[in-house]
Amino acid sequence: MSKKISDAAIRRLPRYYRHLKEMEREGISRTSSQALSQRMGLTASQIRQDFNHFGGFGQQGYGYKVKELCDALARILGQGQNRFYNTIIIGAGNMGRALGRYDAFRQEGIRVMAYFDQDPTLVDHMIEGLYVYPMEQLEWYIRQNEVEIAIITVPAFAAQQVASRAVSAGIKWIWNFAPVDLKVAGVIVESTHLTDSMLALTYRMNQPELLKQKVRKQTQSADADEQED
Amino acid sequence: MSKKISDAAIRRLPRYYRHLKEMEREGISRTSSQALSQRMGLTASQIRQDFNHFGGFGQQGYGYKVKELCDALARILGQGQNRFYNTIIIGAGNMGRALGRYDAFRQEGIRVMAYFDQDPTLVDHMIEGLYVYPMEQLEWYIRQNEVEIAIITVPAFAAQQVASRAVSAGIKWIWNFAPVDLKVAGVIVESTHLTDSMLALTYRMNQPELLKQKVRKQTQSADADEQED
Repeated sequence: MSKKISDAAIRRLPRYYRHLKEMEREGISRTSSQALSQRMGLTASQIRQDFNHFGGFGQQGYGYKVKELCDALARILGQGQNRFYNTIIIGAGNMGRALGRYDAFRQEGIRVMAYFDQDPTLVDHMIEGLYVYPMEQLEWYIRQNEVEIAIITVPAFAAQQVASRAVSAGIKWIWNFAPVDLKVAGVIVESTHLTDSMLALTYRMNQPELLKQKVRKQTQSADADEQED
Repeated sequence: MSKKISDAAIRRLPRYYRHLKEMEREGISRTSSQALSQRMGLTASQIRQDFNHFGGFGQQGYGYKVKELCDALARILGQGQNRFYNTIIIGAGNMGRALGRYDAFRQEGIRVMAYFDQDPTLVDHMIEGLYVYPMEQLEWYIRQNEVEIAIITVPAFAAQQVASRAVSAGIKWIWNFAPVDLKVAGVIVESTHLTDSMLALTYRMNQPELLKQKVRKQTQSADADEQED
């Protein structure tokens, strides 16, 4: 596997995987870079290039078997039948709870084991089958249960401190929802900044020419993907 | 304003804005591209280039006044004192409710007015001050209330249909949380695919060399930003 894989290419992988799973459900057994291109709004050469980067599935000119490609992508994305990721959610507020209940994560092997919070009205209670531990037990729990992923959904002012504590206890992978850029050493941080996404939307709302361009593009090609991401 | 602004540059704007607001709160009145560079883990030349794209705030060599820069970015991002965005949330499940309660959106002028759902146990009830309308009233409500933004948090299988209906009623801006790529003409779609983000994380978890590279980078430079986004 090439070491020079761009972040953009990594982010396309889950999208390929999602579309291929959809195609499997639709009963499509074979596909091509052209068919994927039409479906996903990417160029066929981009798709071939990505697949070459990640191992060169299929044979040029013969297309791809949907199931094989889907299984290969699953392996690359760390989705094994017996691969589970021990996960905790730090912050049992609205966002934390929504993520704790998010069914789709279970299909990706994410095993949410517990909440952590400092609110005394939440601590030592159950939220739909998951215990809310007090923040004092964070380090102990992570070590005891070999927790790999910490999802951080605390308010901005508290995020850096809980992230540092989680990392000191051995967490190696953080998914951060707090609207701050965390500074933590030697771990991989995936950030979802909802306020930034909203501002990207309100920015575009105030650039009417962006909308006009999209409408024009749409008129030219009915197959074009209007998705912006 | 230049028309060739990349999507990546647009996505950096909210991050600049967030850091400058933090600096304002910290009582910092002047800054420079160097200081922002250290704080944000971007190069100073990248920052100067972005600011030039968006109007060239400040004078080379004199730095920037934090408040002025912050106000200018607020205008560019569509954040005026009297600018509100009429918004509905389609799908009153866990994710929809978490977003409806998300305080930070209010500060960005997002005025969530109502939920829409088809679940009879939710319809015609209030969720923390917001009414849940039946899906049948979607088009009527959008027209009646001049709704601008639709946040879509319905399950994957229902997302395309509700998006098409919302667009037909005049919605111009969609924020999609459903794990599908929507096909809608003439509107701007911002997508937050949580399952894709999770897969990008589990992908990286299975590439140990990525973690090693980060640790090495971190050892070389204590100021480097470990954030991956």
